Amino acid sequence: MSKASDFGVWEGEVTIDLPEQTDAGVYFLGRIRTPWTERKQCPKNARESDAVCTVEVDPRFAPGLKDVESCSHLVLLYWMDRAPRNIVLQVPGHYGVQRGTFALRSPARPNPIAMSVVRLLRIEGNRLSVIGLDCLDGTPLIDLKPYFASTDSVPDAVVGWHRKT
Amino acid sequence: MSKASDFGVWEGEVTIDLPEQTDAGVYFLGRIRTPWTERKQCPKNARESDAVCTVEVDPRFAPGLKDVESCSHLVLLYWMDRAPRNIVLQVPGHYGVQRGTFALRSPARPNPIAMSVVRLLRIEGNRLSVIGLDCLDGTPLIDLKPYFASTDSVPDAVVGWHRKT
Repeated sequence: MSKASDFGVWEGEVTIDLPEQTDAGVYFLGRIRTPWTERKQCPKNARESDAVCTVEVDPRFAPGLKDVESCSHLVLLYWMDRAPRNIVLQVPGHYGVQRGTFALRSPARPNPIAMSVVRLLRIEGNRLSVIGLDCLDGTPLIDLKPYFASTDSVPDAVVGWHRKT
Repeated sequence: MSKASDFGVWEGEVTIDLPEQTDAGVYFLGRIRTPWTERKQCPKNARESDAVCTVEVDPRFAPGLKDVESCSHLVLLYWMDRAPRNIVLQVPGHYGVQRGTFALRSPARPNPIAMSVVRLLRIEGNRLSVIGLDCLDGTPLIDLKPYFASTDSVPDAVVGWHRKT
């Protein structure tokens, strides 16, 4: 563990040496089209925006979309390919307090996989129109799943550090 | 797209040729310890079990756990390393109807990444005790995140195909 000094790493942030090799590989299944081309344009979280975004699934994988249209909400996993992966303690700009990476939803994490719950508006061929994303235009899609309220919805969940800020 | 014939692929299931190369690499951040060593022992979904499971985060990544103890619930992402990745249409045994892979939470998917919402009981060093998992013992962990009810909880979400079964 060492004090961070790389470009893009802030005072108070701490990095680690990553393993020399990764352990498994992911396929990019398509791309997410959003109105945001720079990070500063992105909403801070997905509930801040009603923008309709488009998920373009590569034709190879599109047969797997059968029955997805019956889902009101989906879980999307996507690859935050511009984020550093070696930061374990970070200082989010809008909070100004050092937090552990795994206590944050920051894109900077060892595996830069974001998870968003989106509302599905419609599917046309291999293109899904959804509401509830906050990522950059062109972000690679790595999975989509049905959202089951029975297992995925916990209305009374608490993030203690956030409640205090 | 071709009719499946591999071991472990069922009548009515359809496979694709996967791309020759993966697009990005993931690190295994630790292992999940559960009571289940064979797939048939695993609960069908996480709400069926109150078993306490243990998430062991590798010491290298453990500094990132700071502040996680203030979260009542977490999102865990883990790598279903024994599942085939080339199935786009599949017939889950307990339903018996052909569905698109992206309409299912099956571990068989192009990127075999499972997402579970778990209740955090406690953290001791680099070990987290949680309730709400259904995976095999030894499953690789690839991310953990705070669960925010404000963006992640949708109590009235519907999976149409499931409601009808």
